[in-house]
Parts: sequence; C-alpha cells; structure tokens
Amino acid sequence: MFIGAQVSLYPMTSDFIRVILSGLEALSPWRDQLRIETDDMSTLMVGAPEPLFTAIRDLFARVAREPAHVTLHTTISRGCPGEPDEPSCRCDALTVEQNLSLVERQALALAAINAAPRLGVKIDVQFSLYVMGQDRHMDEIYGCIDFLKNSGTFLRSKNFCTRLSGDAGAVFETVQQAFLRFGPASGHVTIDLTASANSPSAR
Amino acid sequence: MFIGAQVSLYPMTSDFIRVILSGLEALSPWRDQLRIETDDMSTLMVGAPEPLFTAIRDLFARVAREPAHVTLHTTISRGCPGEPDEPSCRCDALTVEQNLSLVERQALALAAINAAPRLGVKIDVQFSLYVMGQDRHMDEIYGCIDFLKNSGTFLRSKNFCTRLSGDAGAVFETVQQAFLRFGPASGHVTIDLTASANSPSAR
Repeated sequence: MFIGAQVSLYPMTSDFIRVILSGLEALSPWRDQLRIETDDMSTLMVGAPEPLFTAIRDLFARVAREPAHVTLHTTISRGCPGEPDEPSCRCDALTVEQNLSLVERQALALAAINAAPRLGVKIDVQFSLYVMGQDRHMDEIYGCIDFLKNSGTFLRSKNFCTRLSGDAGAVFETVQQAFLRFGPASGHVTIDLTASANSPSAR
Repeated sequence: MFIGAQVSLYPMTSDFIRVILSGLEALSPWRDQLRIETDDMSTLMVGAPEPLFTAIRDLFARVAREPAHVTLHTTISRGCPGEPDEPSCRCDALTVEQNLSLVERQALALAAINAAPRLGVKIDVQFSLYVMGQDRHMDEIYGCIDFLKNSGTFLRSKNFCTRLSGDAGAVFETVQQAFLRFGPASGHVTIDLTASANSPSAR
C-alpha cells in the first residue's frame, strides 16, 4: 500500500511567502515519520494515515492562527495501482478493521472524532471522496455520507462535494475517518480537499 | 448526464478580493450557457464540457495576466450517479464518439489541442483524473497518460498527479480532452486540478 498527499497552501496576502514558510515549519516534528518533498506547486507527504492527516492539520492550523485569509488544498491517495508498496504506510484501520460491517465502521469513525483533540482553530472544509475500481462504489460513498451527517462537523452537501465546519481537530479527524473507513481495504481511494480560514465572505 | 465544476481562485496578494471579482467578470459571456453560483468557498458551474472548460480557462487567464501569483483549483465531474440528468450538459464527444478505440480517441484528443487557440498566457497545471465504477479503471488512466505525454503540454509525472505547462489555451484543451475521451461515456469521471501562474518559485 502506498499512502500520501500533495498539499498546497494559499495565503491571500502579499506576505504569502513568509506565511507558507511558517506553515512548513509546523511539519518539522513529522519529518521522521513522513517523507516530505516540496516543489513549486505542492508538498508531497508519504506515510501512514495518522501522521499524514495530523501533519496536514498542524500545517493548516499554524497558518490559520494568523489574521490573513488562507486556504489549503490537498489531493490524498491510498492504494493507487501505479504506486509501489511502501511499508511505512501500514495502518491497522485499513487491514484488521476493514472487514467490519458498514455500521460498525461508522461507529468507529464517530468514536475517533469524539476522541480527537480540539485545537481552538475554526476552519471550513469542502471535500470529495473517490472510490475506484469496483462496480458498487456508491454504496460506500452513501455509507460515508451517512457518517458525515452524524459527525458533528457536517455543514451541508454541495454538488460534487461535502462541506464541513468546526474545530480543526474534529474536522481533520472527520476527513481521516472518511478516508480510512470507507472503500475496500486494498482499494484505490482518493480525497480532493480544500480547507479555508479567515474568509471575509459570509457563508 | 450531469456535468459541472466547483472552481476557486486564490490570488496571493492582499488585494485578493478585487482580483477575484475581476476574474468572475470573465465569466459574464458564459452565463447564458452555464449555471453559475458563487458561495464563500467556490463557484459552481454546470453545463456542457466545451463552455465549461472555456469559461474556467478564461477565468484563470484573466487573473493570470495580472502581476500577482495566483492559483485556481477546480473539482470537475461528469456522470456522478448522485446527480440528476441535466439536458444542457449533452456532449457529442461523450455519446457518439466514445465507442471508438483508445487509439482513435487519443488521435481526436491530439487534434483538438492543435486546433485550440493560443492566449499568450503561460500557466502550470497539475491534475488527477479519476474513473469510478469499473474494475479496469487503470487501462483508461494509462491510455490517458500516453495521450498526455504526446500532448505538447506534458511537463512530468508526480505522485498522484500529472504536471502540464504551456499556453493556457493548449493546457486547458489538454485537460478537457483527458476528461472527455477517457473513461466510459456514461461513467463517473472526475478531475482534481490546480493551475498556477506568476509563481516566484523555480520549477
């Protein structure tokens, strides 16, 4: 299994270079657990889901504490058939627990959100979950949407994506659980996610 | 068939509100062919692929002509089973021509890029194409990657996505052809795309 993300930060300020570099500093504690490589468009992070989602959360929470409007976009992927197996990406939720029923997986996902730390940073997210390579991919999507509606972070459905809102800790845990608990254990599952903070626009 | 996109502009300048509003003005000629609705995180555009991709191209080309570093993210979707049928989204490339072989579709896609207008605006793009709901989704993905490598806009492969570079006219035509010509005609196909212009970072 190969798991990772391409992550980009977009601070809406003329001081954007400093804000981006400050955000990248928040990744320092994770560099021993994740492979992290930055180019001119995005930062690649490869590793197991827990450090991966926590690192993306910490990156965004750091810059969201500044006053400027900022967004983050990430493309997250697991199980792409074109990528090599990577032992550092191993994750029990994807191996031991994926044979559980949809209802049991939904319960584990909700418990994880309740246990997630609160960071005191309010964010908005919209994201899409894609499950490839099986005929009945929408069963897992609908099961995931049921979970999201009960997550406590659900804001509303939109065309092509779902809006979440709340503390960065609960919101990123919600997305991590959507990514881990739905779709086949060895399947190709991706997320297209945008996070936003300090927007001057009203919802 | 329901076809559309969620589109967001991120100008890296403290003057971002003016730049975004200027970009949205570039959509005016398309409002009779597309349903366009803006909220605080993105602009929904619904309609046939040709006006849809041209409108997104024009939106980004407008703001890329300004000096500030700017990025655009869009989530583009066709055939999502959860969306209603929408007659305005009808497209011959997706109905009449989709029964052609992979090689014939690759040739049509390359011809379309050669016929695309040049806008005089240089952009970088990275994007992922997702084909859902069939067992052998990677055959179409690999066929699309072959096309991209011959497109004249290919820069390099990255984990989880492909980099393109060139004139906005050719680059957006490349992405439109990837979206239209690969994956089953009635299938669920999506694109996760980021465009960038005026970046201070070297490639």
